[in-house]
Amino acid sequence: MGSPTGGDVVTAAVLIIGDEILSGRTQDTNLRDIARYLGVHGVDLAEARTVPDVMEEIIAALNALRDRYDYVITTGGIGPTHDDITADAVAAAFGVELYEHPEILGMMTARWGDQLNAARRRMARVPVGGDLVKNPVQGPPGFTIGNVFVLAGVPQIMRGMLEDVGPRLRSGAVVLTKTVRVEGSGEGAMAAPLEAVAKAHPTMSLGSYPFFGDGIYGSNLVLRGRDPEELAATVIELIAALEAAGVSGGREVESV
Amino acid sequence: MGSPTGGDVVTAAVLIIGDEILSGRTQDTNLRDIARYLGVHGVDLAEARTVPDVMEEIIAALNALRDRYDYVITTGGIGPTHDDITADAVAAAFGVELYEHPEILGMMTARWGDQLNAARRRMARVPVGGDLVKNPVQGPPGFTIGNVFVLAGVPQIMRGMLEDVGPRLRSGAVVLTKTVRVEGSGEGAMAAPLEAVAKAHPTMSLGSYPFFGDGIYGSNLVLRGRDPEELAATVIELIAALEAAGVSGGREVESV
Repeated sequence: MGSPTGGDVVTAAVLIIGDEILSGRTQDTNLRDIARYLGVHGVDLAEARTVPDVMEEIIAALNALRDRYDYVITTGGIGPTHDDITADAVAAAFGVELYEHPEILGMMTARWGDQLNAARRRMARVPVGGDLVKNPVQGPPGFTIGNVFVLAGVPQIMRGMLEDVGPRLRSGAVVLTKTVRVEGSGEGAMAAPLEAVAKAHPTMSLGSYPFFGDGIYGSNLVLRGRDPEELAATVIELIAALEAAGVSGGREVESV
Repeated sequence: MGSPTGGDVVTAAVLIIGDEILSGRTQDTNLRDIARYLGVHGVDLAEARTVPDVMEEIIAALNALRDRYDYVITTGGIGPTHDDITADAVAAAFGVELYEHPEILGMMTARWGDQLNAARRRMARVPVGGDLVKNPVQGPPGFTIGNVFVLAGVPQIMRGMLEDVGPRLRSGAVVLTKTVRVEGSGEGAMAAPLEAVAKAHPTMSLGSYPFFGDGIYGSNLVLRGRDPEELAATVIELIAALEAAGVSGGREVESV
């Protein structure tokens, strides 16, 4: 289905940078956090990619995504070690140099004094033409250049940095979500009424997410749209369509 | 860094299909499970993409990935509802038709009898030239065509289907992992010795994954390589290089 249409649509992509995700060592949670954050700000997350800590891979993915979407948010690869090459890759993608940002260098000098070694100074580097993204948690800031926001990979820090991203985004109409939960019926019984209701509301997005286990099975039918009145009416319509198809017990629940 | 080189390298990509991931409704865990499974089978996960339930997006991503990597594993979008369009998209990407697979249809008829409606029959469709992927958990099988494996999105079912994927993969040399944990030092102090050791072992991959919280901070230095003797020797070399740089207490821990 993709995102609901109708109203002003602003799009974003997430670029997750890091061998640790692709090796299975680390469970990414940043994508979900960013998706939810963007949703609240009326921005649709349209695509996500995960690439290794390899210069050409980061550059190619970043250029593909920033050409296509209104915004790109990257996570990971901005630390002090040799495998942290995101700043280099972003600068190369934009065809600009990196320079040591005086504000970051000042913060780092205050923090580290004569322990401010070459590795730590790497984290003061920002592409020419870039601007800082505040880091309220720990360590140096992220940065933004063009339509790209470069955030940390550590989830606590990433979430903190996100708070300085939202106010800079052009907002679209916020996508609202409602969920109809049906227990004791399979998706196969719900598919026809769900499709009929989806077809009657072409700007909305209706999806079915089955669950089973603990002796309970069924599906959460998720309705997403930008018009609150249409959304509320569609919930009632869907429950009625399910009942007409012999699927009873559908009820609106808190969306998760 | 990317994956270690040296030895026979077999690559794969994961294509996650589903609005529910991009809306932030669902936390994906399949990527990590697949990454670990592939690692055990000597296959490097080189890239992952997440796309919405939109035909053209799935086709474009699938064609880009299957051209480039040895294998592609997709998750999601193979249920009975209208938003489940993965089979259609895979068939379109390969330029073939879908047909109702007699084996699946037989299973479904046995299960559903005269309740086998049009929606459920959708799940019996397989691209011409495709082969089935066993589903030991619940519901109809997945399928494979060319170098693409099409699995369910529900994690329990996806993991079950994976067991029928491994035996069909050409195996590369397995990547082995060791972890050196350092507490009480920041990454900035470890960067120089870590980089020096990384440069001395160009076919290996060394990364730094900092942690903090609960009053403990430090970093897990992860070493990955295909040669077990070189890997073991490099752990000792790294701990020594850290100590020489004034970072003590590095110790090998169980890799997670």
